[in-house]
Amino acid sequence: MRAVDIIIKKRDKQELTSQEIEFFIKGFTNGEIPDYQASAFAMAILLNGMTPFETADLTLAMANSGQVLDLSKVVDIAVDKHSSGGVGDKTSISVMPMVAACGLPVGKMSGRGLGFSGGTLDKLESVPGYRVDLSTDEFKKQLKEKGIVLTGQSLDLAPADGKMYALRDVTGTVPSMPLIASSIMSKKIAAGAQAIVLDVKTGLGAFMQTLEEARVLANLMVDIGRLAGRKTVALLSDMNQPLGSAVGNALEMVEAIELLRGRAPQDYYEHCLHVAAHVLVLGQRAKDLDEGRAMAQKSIDDGSALEKLRVLVQAQGGDVSYVDDVSRFERAKYVEAAKSPRSGFISQIHARIVGEASVTLGAGRAKKGDPIDHAVGFLILKKVGDKVEAGEPLFEIHANDEAKLAEARTNVLSAYQFSDEFVPPLPLFYE
Amino acid sequence: MRAVDIIIKKRDKQELTSQEIEFFIKGFTNGEIPDYQASAFAMAILLNGMTPFETADLTLAMANSGQVLDLSKVVDIAVDKHSSGGVGDKTSISVMPMVAACGLPVGKMSGRGLGFSGGTLDKLESVPGYRVDLSTDEFKKQLKEKGIVLTGQSLDLAPADGKMYALRDVTGTVPSMPLIASSIMSKKIAAGAQAIVLDVKTGLGAFMQTLEEARVLANLMVDIGRLAGRKTVALLSDMNQPLGSAVGNALEMVEAIELLRGRAPQDYYEHCLHVAAHVLVLGQRAKDLDEGRAMAQKSIDDGSALEKLRVLVQAQGGDVSYVDDVSRFERAKYVEAAKSPRSGFISQIHARIVGEASVTLGAGRAKKGDPIDHAVGFLILKKVGDKVEAGEPLFEIHANDEAKLAEARTNVLSAYQFSDEFVPPLPLFYE
Repeated sequence: MRAVDIIIKKRDKQELTSQEIEFFIKGFTNGEIPDYQASAFAMAILLNGMTPFETADLTLAMANSGQVLDLSKVVDIAVDKHSSGGVGDKTSISVMPMVAACGLPVGKMSGRGLGFSGGTLDKLESVPGYRVDLSTDEFKKQLKEKGIVLTGQSLDLAPADGKMYALRDVTGTVPSMPLIASSIMSKKIAAGAQAIVLDVKTGLGAFMQTLEEARVLANLMVDIGRLAGRKTVALLSDMNQPLGSAVGNALEMVEAIELLRGRAPQDYYEHCLHVAAHVLVLGQRAKDLDEGRAMAQKSIDDGSALEKLRVLVQAQGGDVSYVDDVSRFERAKYVEAAKSPRSGFISQIHARIVGEASVTLGAGRAKKGDPIDHAVGFLILKKVGDKVEAGEPLFEIHANDEAKLAEARTNVLSAYQFSDEFVPPLPLFYE
Repeated sequence: MRAVDIIIKKRDKQELTSQEIEFFIKGFTNGEIPDYQASAFAMAILLNGMTPFETADLTLAMANSGQVLDLSKVVDIAVDKHSSGGVGDKTSISVMPMVAACGLPVGKMSGRGLGFSGGTLDKLESVPGYRVDLSTDEFKKQLKEKGIVLTGQSLDLAPADGKMYALRDVTGTVPSMPLIASSIMSKKIAAGAQAIVLDVKTGLGAFMQTLEEARVLANLMVDIGRLAGRKTVALLSDMNQPLGSAVGNALEMVEAIELLRGRAPQDYYEHCLHVAAHVLVLGQRAKDLDEGRAMAQKSIDDGSALEKLRVLVQAQGGDVSYVDDVSRFERAKYVEAAKSPRSGFISQIHARIVGEASVTLGAGRAKKGDPIDHAVGFLILKKVGDKVEAGEPLFEIHANDEAKLAEARTNVLSAYQFSDEFVPPLPLFYE
């Protein structure tokens, strides 16, 4: 078998066999197949596509390119949850403790923020001491003993995916459904997931801007899951406006914690209950979504979810006093409200603009490895569908630099659109 | 400007500007743009195409990636001739002396054979001492003083093309019209050509197997020539069966020399007169093709073309006695005729099979740098349209190894197809 013949086959729109895909990924991982062949292959995949079978093969080949966690001795069923990324999406930080409190052990490996989209690890690190670099042994041990883990992706898992992603990033081969889907699913499978809840975001602040694209990606990932023998469900949720109120690492962490005390913006609260219900059903703790939802609600009401978060933070070396008293979180030097320039109904808050403005404030990174400022960000006070009067506060800016504060105000104001007529709130989920 | 944005633009089927193409080729040539970006770019070009404007820009960028020969002080008009490659194609070796004898100075840089297709340099090297590594200064000096040069491609010319070709070869990005056309034309332009006669082969033994493909390539190269300010004509000629009789380096060299004595297979003779006529018209030595053809014929009849070949061989260090006495050429140890298995009309002699069989005998190379055997090859005695009787010799095998001889006989016999009914000879030219 030769790499060039596999590239040619894909170039000529022929379906690749499992053996060919495995040969290519194995060779690429161990360096026998050079980057220049892998990038030509990626471009051919992007332009000619892949069948669900090929995509499942690619996923498994990448998952098997390194260590694959076996959690079967640790938990009855290893459930994972993945969000395709958005602005203000702190769901995992609330949902994982909720489902763990319901008796479903959950261990999750998350990513960092890149571009306008935040990352769970960055949010968690706003709690001093919180470690996101657990070894796989620590991961298993904590999952078994505490029933909850929230850490970073181990480098040993799916190394082909990491190497391929770095290459895709510089060769214009990122926006390919089979490559995106296999990248996500390979990491989940390598991390030992037997059942996966996918939260695919769609809208202005998502990577998939149209519902159609999001649906294609969601279906493809469900197909991969099925072909790879993993129970998989995908939700399509809105990412036109930021989720909840907080955008920015410490601000989002506070919002995620406060939800576990029953205090959270309605949309974020609903979103978490819905996702938690799906995880509980897939994890065989609830017989249906209604039961799952009721269990999740109860974990908030009885404080057991908050207690699980405390356990998590403590287990991973974080300062638990931050969970007990959110006023301890680092606060930005300047906090100012931006006022509405007019009266009317809010018809749009462009999530991507808000996300990019938060990066400018220092909450995110323009490129890998950039330092971030945990304290800065926004609190969105009015959402799509809300009626506002001119002069009423629309959002709060948390900044450590006055010039950046002014810039952020202008930018986020430009994300708002108004209407004279009633605008219905955005749906939380599409399907 | 960033390389990845240029790749993305081509990936998204947008037209690239001259500046973008120049930036990419310059960066690739000097190593700032890595191979893995260039291969993704090449795959995007292969799958999404390029407009004639983009292809002309790519051609000029590659031509300008190194030294560009300026022949304006050496000759009135620098005419070049290029064949897209085939089996038994020794045309340059006969035609260059013919047109030079008609008073049109010609300097040409040729290539080596690769795969089933022979190369002019390998044929010339069957004359002991013949140098194909002239420097550009030697090239200019000989062109000015002798009016004829036939040497190898200088490494200083169009280095981007050489680098890109090596990459295309291992990334499945060879068969792209814009990449093929720009590769050919960039070398011609870098070699100083002001007018170019293209002999585009089509058929079973050509890279372009259908007339349609060959026509697209020919039109594209003519477009590039026009956009780059070079007078360009393209001929579409047949390469279903080998051209002439000889296939193999010394055998072809002999056939090319003998043509200048008026002794050559009819098809090859006709082919050379036609190409020579076009070169003479484009080089402004003949007012039309009829006059060009008559001049070319005269150069054979009066021995002036043969004399020019003698001048060429002497100038480049070759042993002229080989021109005067072709029996001096190295002869293979075993020479055997293969007999026709049946009576009938010959309907096909699959040129590619013959070319590949000659490689197996040792006349060509499977990969760059392989040694070759100048003596081995075939003489095709019967061509398409000929009537043969069972047992009549079809072709002669020249081999230095008995096992290979037997293998070659079987293979070339399989290249022949017969018909009970009359088959017209193949046309020499289509357009």
